[in-house]
Amino acid sequence: MARIVGVGEVLVEMMATAPGQGFRAPGLFAGPYPSGAPAIFIDQAARMGASTALIACAGDDDFGRCVLDRLRANGVDISHIRAVPDVATGIAFVCYRADGGRDFIFHMGNAAAGRLTMDDIAPAAFDGCDVLHIMGSSLFAPEMGAVMRRALALTQAAGGKLSFDPNVRLELLTRPGNADLIRELTARAHYLLPSEADLAFLFPGMAPDDAARRLLDGPAACVFLKRGAAGSSYFDRNGSFDMPAFAVTEVDPTGAGDCAGATFMACLLEGRTPQDAARRANAAGALAVTRRGPMEGNSMPAELDAMLEGH
Amino acid sequence: MARIVGVGEVLVEMMATAPGQGFRAPGLFAGPYPSGAPAIFIDQAARMGASTALIACAGDDDFGRCVLDRLRANGVDISHIRAVPDVATGIAFVCYRADGGRDFIFHMGNAAAGRLTMDDIAPAAFDGCDVLHIMGSSLFAPEMGAVMRRALALTQAAGGKLSFDPNVRLELLTRPGNADLIRELTARAHYLLPSEADLAFLFPGMAPDDAARRLLDGPAACVFLKRGAAGSSYFDRNGSFDMPAFAVTEVDPTGAGDCAGATFMACLLEGRTPQDAARRANAAGALAVTRRGPMEGNSMPAELDAMLEGH
Repeated sequence: MARIVGVGEVLVEMMATAPGQGFRAPGLFAGPYPSGAPAIFIDQAARMGASTALIACAGDDDFGRCVLDRLRANGVDISHIRAVPDVATGIAFVCYRADGGRDFIFHMGNAAAGRLTMDDIAPAAFDGCDVLHIMGSSLFAPEMGAVMRRALALTQAAGGKLSFDPNVRLELLTRPGNADLIRELTARAHYLLPSEADLAFLFPGMAPDDAARRLLDGPAACVFLKRGAAGSSYFDRNGSFDMPAFAVTEVDPTGAGDCAGATFMACLLEGRTPQDAARRANAAGALAVTRRGPMEGNSMPAELDAMLEGH
Repeated sequence: MARIVGVGEVLVEMMATAPGQGFRAPGLFAGPYPSGAPAIFIDQAARMGASTALIACAGDDDFGRCVLDRLRANGVDISHIRAVPDVATGIAFVCYRADGGRDFIFHMGNAAAGRLTMDDIAPAAFDGCDVLHIMGSSLFAPEMGAVMRRALALTQAAGGKLSFDPNVRLELLTRPGNADLIRELTARAHYLLPSEADLAFLFPGMAPDDAARRLLDGPAACVFLKRGAAGSSYFDRNGSFDMPAFAVTEVDPTGAGDCAGATFMACLLEGRTPQDAARRANAAGALAVTRRGPMEGNSMPAELDAMLEGH
């Protein structure tokens, strides 16, 4: 059983219940839902059967326990998630525009999630670590650089590799360090799991396929490109392929890319071919968008089997 | 027209919609509702006809604009509320226990509200200031001491007085400085607006009436004691009286004490007798608990007149 260690934020999400509802006047929000891109990823990797651990900071409050309950129930090792006593668990508020876009308000770097330090990167978490997974959303402050470098050093000492999802967020790009750290970790990763938007940030104006191949000029061994409703593509030094999407009706895209990436990585690590891993990742992403909530759309292997059999 | 200046936090509030709903599992929350004890107070003082200003920090986001829209609409001078660019407006989540108690999760000192500094205390805000109103809920960090002392010095230079509501919150009492600052401002106030719980903190084991009279040993000229469903009491060096409550069905107690205190202070400053001010304060507090939301139960003078005529 491959071991995947995640480092990053746990959040709860509060979701507007009506399309067009905004943040400036009262409405109804559903939540708290367990969230945080690294938490969504690691939850799905655990569901797929990987041995998983998440290193993170939550508040010592019921929002934090809401996330930990979920991760524990799905088999994630939560013993390295620290409960910070004097600041609440981070929160993401999301509203859905009538045009399909989304607006967010975050308490993240200023919340418990922002308290992660080098001291939280416990060597014991990396025993037998095959893959360290990091996401650009976690790079909200320059201090996260030292945290992530230490995690990567421990992973490499254990013979493991870095999996990196640039997960570029416009609201974080203005923060000191965010863009530089995304470039640094992109250049150091063995597995890259970008979206098309991430490639547009890394290589402005370049076609996504060309940008993905460009990433293979560095140490990356493979690129799993998440293309949303267009499916996914895979690139390594032997070639590439496109994997079509499953046609579904989208209810909520939140977390779908994280879920697909985790499925791809867990499948690859358990010895499936890139084609099989990509097909299952697309199935997991499709199921994720049909369900409302950041982590609510994560799937068990039997659900993916059923989805694959149905097509 | 008397001028009242408030200094403290603006927040939005997210309110659980079902009794017994907690923070550990998803439910529905209504919000954002304009909140923050000093904001509730200054909104009500403005409704009562006082010239008001609030010095505060909000996020540069729609949660902040939600609060500012309300204050502006009711005539509060919001020109001294600074929009902080890189951290979101503070948030209070509230859940209602089946037994009538409430549970809270706050992002306050770590949110925009926590960015208030001495530089925000603009001398121009204190031109003609009759009363500076401060609340214990705003004293969430030792740095708030310097902020409040500067505001008080500018108020005194303008010939104004301090109105202080200790507003003791158990979750803040463990923070450095909170208890000391509450004691310091209690000892420096001209008008004191405590609750019975506040008196129990200031004078443990002492009967509320005795504690209120003890406060008159210092520089305080009068004490308006908020007793919830039991009404209010007033104490000065000439004597004291009890003012009975209006019998209403409580829907949500949030903000009722702030609303009552603001009504008392605004009425006193416009020349009403303490008896008349206390009666109107009790009417305002009673109306406040019949409406859901921290600031949603604030009243206009005509509503108070109607309430008084009905009894």
